[in-house]
Amino acid sequence: MTQNDGQAARDKQLAEQALLAGFFEHGLFIPTGVPGLYGRGAAYEAVMEGFARHLSDCTRADQATQVHFPPLMPRANLERIGYLESFPHLAGLIFSFDGTEADHLKLLTSLANGESYAGSVKMTDLVVASATCQPLYPTLRGRLPEKGLLFDLTQYCFRREPSNDPARMQSFRMREHVRLGTPTEVQHWREDWYGRAHTLFTGLGLQVDRVVANDPFFGRGGKVLASNQLQQQFKFELVTPITSQELPTPIFSFNYHEAHFTAMYGIETHAGETAHSGCLGIGIERIAIALFKQHGFDVRTWPATVRSLLHLDRQDVAQTVRS
Amino acid sequence: MTQNDGQAARDKQLAEQALLAGFFEHGLFIPTGVPGLYGRGAAYEAVMEGFARHLSDCTRADQATQVHFPPLMPRANLERIGYLESFPHLAGLIFSFDGTEADHLKLLTSLANGESYAGSVKMTDLVVASATCQPLYPTLRGRLPEKGLLFDLTQYCFRREPSNDPARMQSFRMREHVRLGTPTEVQHWREDWYGRAHTLFTGLGLQVDRVVANDPFFGRGGKVLASNQLQQQFKFELVTPITSQELPTPIFSFNYHEAHFTAMYGIETHAGETAHSGCLGIGIERIAIALFKQHGFDVRTWPATVRSLLHLDRQDVAQTVRS
Repeated sequence: MTQNDGQAARDKQLAEQALLAGFFEHGLFIPTGVPGLYGRGAAYEAVMEGFARHLSDCTRADQATQVHFPPLMPRANLERIGYLESFPHLAGLIFSFDGTEADHLKLLTSLANGESYAGSVKMTDLVVASATCQPLYPTLRGRLPEKGLLFDLTQYCFRREPSNDPARMQSFRMREHVRLGTPTEVQHWREDWYGRAHTLFTGLGLQVDRVVANDPFFGRGGKVLASNQLQQQFKFELVTPITSQELPTPIFSFNYHEAHFTAMYGIETHAGETAHSGCLGIGIERIAIALFKQHGFDVRTWPATVRSLLHLDRQDVAQTVRS
Repeated sequence: MTQNDGQAARDKQLAEQALLAGFFEHGLFIPTGVPGLYGRGAAYEAVMEGFARHLSDCTRADQATQVHFPPLMPRANLERIGYLESFPHLAGLIFSFDGTEADHLKLLTSLANGESYAGSVKMTDLVVASATCQPLYPTLRGRLPEKGLLFDLTQYCFRREPSNDPARMQSFRMREHVRLGTPTEVQHWREDWYGRAHTLFTGLGLQVDRVVANDPFFGRGGKVLASNQLQQQFKFELVTPITSQELPTPIFSFNYHEAHFTAMYGIETHAGETAHSGCLGIGIERIAIALFKQHGFDVRTWPATVRSLLHLDRQDVAQTVRS
C-alpha cells in the first residue's frame, strides 16, 4: 500500500462514518448497537422493493426460474463447498441448547454471573448462508434440460465482518441470477450481462466501472487463491463511488465457477458432459445505499425518471414513505 | 393426554408427512435434508407475496409505521428480554472463527477427520431472532406520541424445533403488528382485531376458531408460567385445521404484554406513565400452507375471489407461477 492509498483509506473511513450517521439521522437505518447490523426504515425498504421490481421488469423476458431460500442452510453444505477452507473468518454457525433442567440452571447461573455460557450450547446442523447461491446447488442433480437453467433468487446472507461502512453489513440481502449449462452458454450469458448491467445502472444515475476482482480468501494460502482467481478472470465487478472516488464499492459481480459446483453435485449438461455454472451477485443493499448517496436522503427529491423506474411514485408507496 | 388425544396426535403426524410430501412433489417446498428447513418455489412465494399485499390493503388506513429488521439481532437483546430463561431450547446463537492460521489448520484437521470443530469457534455478539417484535423494543425509548404507536414489520425468525410438520419450520417468516400506548389503547386495539382477523380469514375461505393459548415455556418451571398466561388470558390464537380437525394449527395470535417490554426499555405513554404493549403474530407461512391445504396445490384452480384478493391474477405473477 502506497502513502496515497493509505490516505485514501483513511478518508474513506471518515466518509463511511459520516454516511452511516446520515442514514441513522434520516431514519433509513435504525441502530442496534452492533456494527453492521441495522433495522431499516420505510423509505429505505421502498427503494429496496422498487429496485427489486425494476430488475424483474428488466429481466422478465429471460424467464428465470424463481426460487427462494431462508437465511439458514445445512452445515453440511457449507462444509462440502469448502467455505471453511477459504473463508472461515466470515462463516456463522448456529449453536443451540438441548440440555436438561439442571443444564439450564447452569446456563442461567453463568449468564447471571456475567460468565460465558458457550459451554452450555452445542453446535447444530445449521449455519447462516454466506451467499445466495450456496443453498441452490445441492438441490440440483443430474442432467440439465436443453439450453440449461437460469435461476433468480434473493436471500439474507451473513458475513462476519463488523464495520462502520454502511455498505459492509453483517446481515444483508443479496440477489443472484445463477446460470447452468455448457461452458459456452455460461460464458456468453456472463459476457452479455456486462452491457446489460451497465445500462441498468446508468439508467438509475449511477456511474459504474468494470474491474477484475477476487474473493477475500483467508490467510497466506488465500493470497495464492486470490491471485489465481484474478489471473483467470473468474470474477469481474461493477464498482461505484459511494464513500470514496479512489476506492469505489463493488455493487454487482459476474462470477464464473467452471465446474467447481457442478462437479461437486453431479450436474450435467443435456448432452451428458459436466456442466459449468456462473452467477451474478447483485448487491441490492449496496445499490440502495449508492442510490441514496447519489440522489440524496429524501426519495421525494430524487429525479423523476429514477422515481418512476423504481415505482416510487405509486400512491401506496408514497404514503408509506411519508408516514 | 387421553387415549383419544394420543390417536389424534398419531393421525396428525401421518397427515403432516403426507402434506409435506405433497409440498415437495408440487415444487412448493424444496428439500434441504434438514427437517423444518426448506427452499420455496415460485407459486408458494406468489401466495406469500399476495397475502402480504392483501393484508397491507386491509390495514392501510391504520397508517402503521413500517420498519424492517434482519434475521439476526444482538445477543444482548435476547438475554435482556429473558428468552434464555423461558425458551432456551428454541434459541439460536451465532458462533464464528476468529483465530490464526494455526487455529484454522486445527479446525480443518478436525473437519477432515470427522471430529467436532466446535472448540475452534467462539460465541459472538449475535443471535438469530426468534420473534419479529424482539428487535423492535430496544430501539424505542422515552415518551410515546399522543395516541401511542403502531408498527408493521416482517422478518425471518428461528426456532430450534426440527419437525416434519410443514407448519412447524425452523426458519420462517412472521409478520407482526405491534401496538404501544396506554393500557386501554392496547386492550381496545387487540379486541378490535378479533373481528377484523375473523373477517380476513373467512374472506380467504379459511375456517378459524379463537382459543386462549400459552407460549411453549421450558421445563417444569415453565408449566407455571404457561398456566399463569392462560389464566390471565394474555394470549389468544386463531386456529385452523391444516393436518387435523381435533388439533388445529395456530395461524394468528393476539398477545398482551402489559408492561413486560415497556418497563424493561423505559417506554412511557404521552402522559408519562409506563406504557403497555401488545402484538399480533401473523403466521404468514402457516397461512400460505393453510391456503394450499384448503384450495389445492395448484393456485390456478383456486376460487376466483381468493385469487383476486391475493393478486394472483396479475400477468407477471401468472407467468412466474407457470414457469
